[in-house]
Amino acid sequence: MDYEIFEAGDVVLQHGATLRGTQLAFKTYGKLNADKTNVIVYPTWYSGQHADNEWLIGAGMALDPAKYFIIVPNMLGNGLSSSPSNMPEPYNKSRFPHVTLYDNVMLQHRLVTEKFGITKIKLVVGWSMGAQQTNQWGCLFPDMVERIAPFCGSAKTAPHNFVFLEGVRSALCADAAWDRGWYLTPPTKGLRAVGRVYAGWGLSQPFYMQELWRGLGFSSLEDFLIGFWEGFFLRRDANNLLAMLWTWQNGDISDNPVFKGDFKKALGAIKAKAMVMPGEMDLYFPVADNVVEVSHMPNAECCPIPGVWGHFAGGGAHAEDTAFIDAKIKALLAS
Amino acid sequence: MDYEIFEAGDVVLQHGATLRGTQLAFKTYGKLNADKTNVIVYPTWYSGQHADNEWLIGAGMALDPAKYFIIVPNMLGNGLSSSPSNMPEPYNKSRFPHVTLYDNVMLQHRLVTEKFGITKIKLVVGWSMGAQQTNQWGCLFPDMVERIAPFCGSAKTAPHNFVFLEGVRSALCADAAWDRGWYLTPPTKGLRAVGRVYAGWGLSQPFYMQELWRGLGFSSLEDFLIGFWEGFFLRRDANNLLAMLWTWQNGDISDNPVFKGDFKKALGAIKAKAMVMPGEMDLYFPVADNVVEVSHMPNAECCPIPGVWGHFAGGGAHAEDTAFIDAKIKALLAS
Repeated sequence: MDYEIFEAGDVVLQHGATLRGTQLAFKTYGKLNADKTNVIVYPTWYSGQHADNEWLIGAGMALDPAKYFIIVPNMLGNGLSSSPSNMPEPYNKSRFPHVTLYDNVMLQHRLVTEKFGITKIKLVVGWSMGAQQTNQWGCLFPDMVERIAPFCGSAKTAPHNFVFLEGVRSALCADAAWDRGWYLTPPTKGLRAVGRVYAGWGLSQPFYMQELWRGLGFSSLEDFLIGFWEGFFLRRDANNLLAMLWTWQNGDISDNPVFKGDFKKALGAIKAKAMVMPGEMDLYFPVADNVVEVSHMPNAECCPIPGVWGHFAGGGAHAEDTAFIDAKIKALLAS
Repeated sequence: MDYEIFEAGDVVLQHGATLRGTQLAFKTYGKLNADKTNVIVYPTWYSGQHADNEWLIGAGMALDPAKYFIIVPNMLGNGLSSSPSNMPEPYNKSRFPHVTLYDNVMLQHRLVTEKFGITKIKLVVGWSMGAQQTNQWGCLFPDMVERIAPFCGSAKTAPHNFVFLEGVRSALCADAAWDRGWYLTPPTKGLRAVGRVYAGWGLSQPFYMQELWRGLGFSSLEDFLIGFWEGFFLRRDANNLLAMLWTWQNGDISDNPVFKGDFKKALGAIKAKAMVMPGEMDLYFPVADNVVEVSHMPNAECCPIPGVWGHFAGGGAHAEDTAFIDAKIKALLAS
């Protein structure tokens, strides 16, 4: 096991359930300095785990463990933190409760404060749903979070994004083997279908036209669909995917007891210096939505990641995009 | 029955099957004039039937039955022309053979020439797969077709478009009730899933952000997803959808005995005056692909339909888009 567990006890969630014996899995990189001023928090994305974030961490990079203490908390539902797949009965499988962005970030805040006694965070950064958690950190803890760098995400899940996810959900649930979540063996037909539904959304039209999957080591389009996309989701637990999908579909940094649905107020509360980086051709977190968000954030800049990698511009698979993101975060940390 | 049947006999298809007793369902609007010079051909789209084309036909419109003889041929697989759902055994259901754009247009050409003795076509026009058939007409019969107006379509299905359709197909086929096409009752879970997968693709991100479904008479997003999208596909036969999907995924005006895969040659053969109208925010027939196609067509202009209706800019549900398309076709017919 290459990660640690923060035992959070019985956590009352925003929607009323009590998640008993909540576990927050996390990994840290680098050392916390004496005055605890070198902290970076880097939440995970939809179905990702801490190891999937490591492409943005390294010597000489913005997120350099020699300089910073980087905490990667695993999102609830991702299979390492408390999830449908690992919760003891009776809150396991289909009974795993609804978890919000707010729930995730409040729990991560407990880790950061109770476990490490941290009071200032130099940067919160994340991709996709990790970006959503990043924005949630920014507005919930404006006096603690000095900088944020959400990339390929949003502060509120747009209706079209919600609809895209309905397609993902429906494809999975069309498989009778899913059995409303009570499957004993994985609903592989549904998981494979999710991969094929996702394939068109994750990358852009010109990505496919230019056959850029070749650079990822695939020999044909079908090889990419099976080898990358079906494989990607076959490795996931269906209930975990559905739990995180609910969190995503209901992602809204203002839908919580603090902001009571006042989205502009929540955006306005983000005092942190913000570098918001949408993927130029992201099909479900479009640039236009980030532009609107940034216009309501007091100290934010929107800087699209150029190119054709769509949502996966922030996935770490394309060196140029990684270099772009890294350079922007370096500049942000230096400012 | 508000349409006619052209009995085409035994048709040998491009991929080798013989479709015995092939029927081409069609409807005509207006009267063929004495010298047969007022002909418009207007093929149908994915799952659409002739009645679904009628929004673009009417008194005072470009496609005015008082002036033109408009022939709407139903695409093979659409449930009216020979299709998995209406073929007698043994070529019914899952055994319905692969049909190409070329097969469809060669059959339509027989209707136009054998049935009506037509030698000149003033205009071929169509939406989506109808646009693909339009382009196929243009390059196969350059001396016959004087004008074409393909909207929200392409001359060759792009890889990303293919991938989008893989998502549609996989969602349908994830339903065990589909039974590889041998269902006795419709695989409704799969058809509903297709509706939800399609919902994100058919319209744009801002369409959903602006809740423009309200203008179509729906009371909530979920009402739109069920009432419009699930309903849309529940009315269709699953095998018919899969047959047409194959035609679409393999759509390429040059993949036939005439052009032998030389796409630029096929585009270059379109002598007709062409008004190519992509939807400005179409997610699966992007403007950029039409721009490239038009650059290889000798007498073509690309004129995007402005606005946020995405692919459905060409669906006839939005009066402004309909007015735009109608005006462009009027100008084309007058030129």
